[in-house]
Amino acid sequence: MADMSGRVLGTGKSGSANIMTDMETARLNILDATHAAFAEAKIDIAAIPSASAVLGLAGAIVGGNGQKLQMTLPFQHSLVASDGVIALQGALGDNDGTVVIIGTGSLFVSRAGDEIRFAGGWGFKVGDLAGGARIGRDLLEETLLAHDRFHASSPLTDAVMARFESNPYKIVEFAHSARPSDFGALAPLVFEYAARNDAVALAILRKAVMQIEEGLDAMMPAGPERLSLIGGLGALFGERLSAPYKAKLQKPLNDALTGAVQLAVKNFAAAGKEAVHG
Amino acid sequence: MADMSGRVLGTGKSGSANIMTDMETARLNILDATHAAFAEAKIDIAAIPSASAVLGLAGAIVGGNGQKLQMTLPFQHSLVASDGVIALQGALGDNDGTVVIIGTGSLFVSRAGDEIRFAGGWGFKVGDLAGGARIGRDLLEETLLAHDRFHASSPLTDAVMARFESNPYKIVEFAHSARPSDFGALAPLVFEYAARNDAVALAILRKAVMQIEEGLDAMMPAGPERLSLIGGLGALFGERLSAPYKAKLQKPLNDALTGAVQLAVKNFAAAGKEAVHG
Repeated sequence: MADMSGRVLGTGKSGSANIMTDMETARLNILDATHAAFAEAKIDIAAIPSASAVLGLAGAIVGGNGQKLQMTLPFQHSLVASDGVIALQGALGDNDGTVVIIGTGSLFVSRAGDEIRFAGGWGFKVGDLAGGARIGRDLLEETLLAHDRFHASSPLTDAVMARFESNPYKIVEFAHSARPSDFGALAPLVFEYAARNDAVALAILRKAVMQIEEGLDAMMPAGPERLSLIGGLGALFGERLSAPYKAKLQKPLNDALTGAVQLAVKNFAAAGKEAVHG
Repeated sequence: MADMSGRVLGTGKSGSANIMTDMETARLNILDATHAAFAEAKIDIAAIPSASAVLGLAGAIVGGNGQKLQMTLPFQHSLVASDGVIALQGALGDNDGTVVIIGTGSLFVSRAGDEIRFAGGWGFKVGDLAGGARIGRDLLEETLLAHDRFHASSPLTDAVMARFESNPYKIVEFAHSARPSDFGALAPLVFEYAARNDAVALAILRKAVMQIEEGLDAMMPAGPERLSLIGGLGALFGERLSAPYKAKLQKPLNDALTGAVQLAVKNFAAAGKEAVHG
């Protein structure tokens, strides 16, 4: 939480707040994090009803979820925004430009004046082609293709096969119940081997970079626009972009939490009270 | 079921027999189908203990599942084989060659003398790159990429979008809970639009054909070997193969059930009793 000058007074953490799958748990975790932030700031929680909140949540723009949540929160003013908007604000400040948030998934957000456009972020099953879950899933696929001798093996596919006790059925079993984050946990291995010029690792990342650049072609107007790659894997991709994109690449100005505070200050300046971000 | 000359006496159907996920249900469904076949053949089920059975089941070669099941069945002799072996025997008879079974998944089986090799069939999440589930999943992915304007749309992606009420979140929702067969149910649409030269449909099928041919390169020795594409989508792919593969392509001699009876006759000739296939 921050005061209206944007100075951070305290922070609080709690469980995940997925308003698409479980609105009530999300609400409780938001309140829990709010209490923790007030405690750290040494402000009585009796002040919550006079605070304003900006919440950056995945799925905020789906089916009115954000508005539904907004109405159940105890703050004087609440603004539930997409996590992408918060991240964009953090990375670009008030500048126009595009951010690609690459973690388990991949989400494109761009701003031109008042207009904010989203693309991607559909989940790794039928989208998020540059995200860690896809990279990890691709790695398992290539490992099985190497096992079948359909594709060439590499030190990376050998390492994965060894990790699954040289038993392809263990890979199938893993994939059967793996969550996106379980697939995504394999992505750092691909970057690690790519740094050693492993052919399979390089091919997987080349494909992911192609996906990023296809997205940028669609999202970025020509011209000297800011571009930032953020999220857990964002920075790792920067050096792999081709020259025209690399030329536009800039370090993110700030993180998503700072973005939330900035939005709170902008939106609730009139209210003149503390701002909370979730 | 058939007599030892291979003449079919009766057939029986029951639920699925997935010995990887539920051995006991598989066993009950096999017995159920056996009873139905004996009833149709008008043979007393008291004869079951003197019959021999060949069972073609997916997952038969995984972790000793087939052998475990074999020991719990009431037949005089039981042989639990991969469904791929049964299909191979049906399609090729006693000839050497390769079959690709393309339905929801894609499985390669080839025989050279006594040696049978398998590849693929790992499930659509990390394999089965030419199967219907992958084709359906690719279609949803392309529809979302068209929605995001990352890729060009086509009449096919427009039709899919309309089917999901022009709401990309409905696609995400569908994909979230879709079983392989649900994705696979979209595959015929891709073939339908490919026949009308839809660019997205053609691209999806070109990718699938490339996967088939990569597999054949690895599985088929050079020379005049038999090749058959079977399964629900197999025949649809025949005309799309490139010339060298098309030249080797032959219609399957028989179906998988005939293959099972042939294997039963071969394996249990000495027993001289009725053969059951599951």
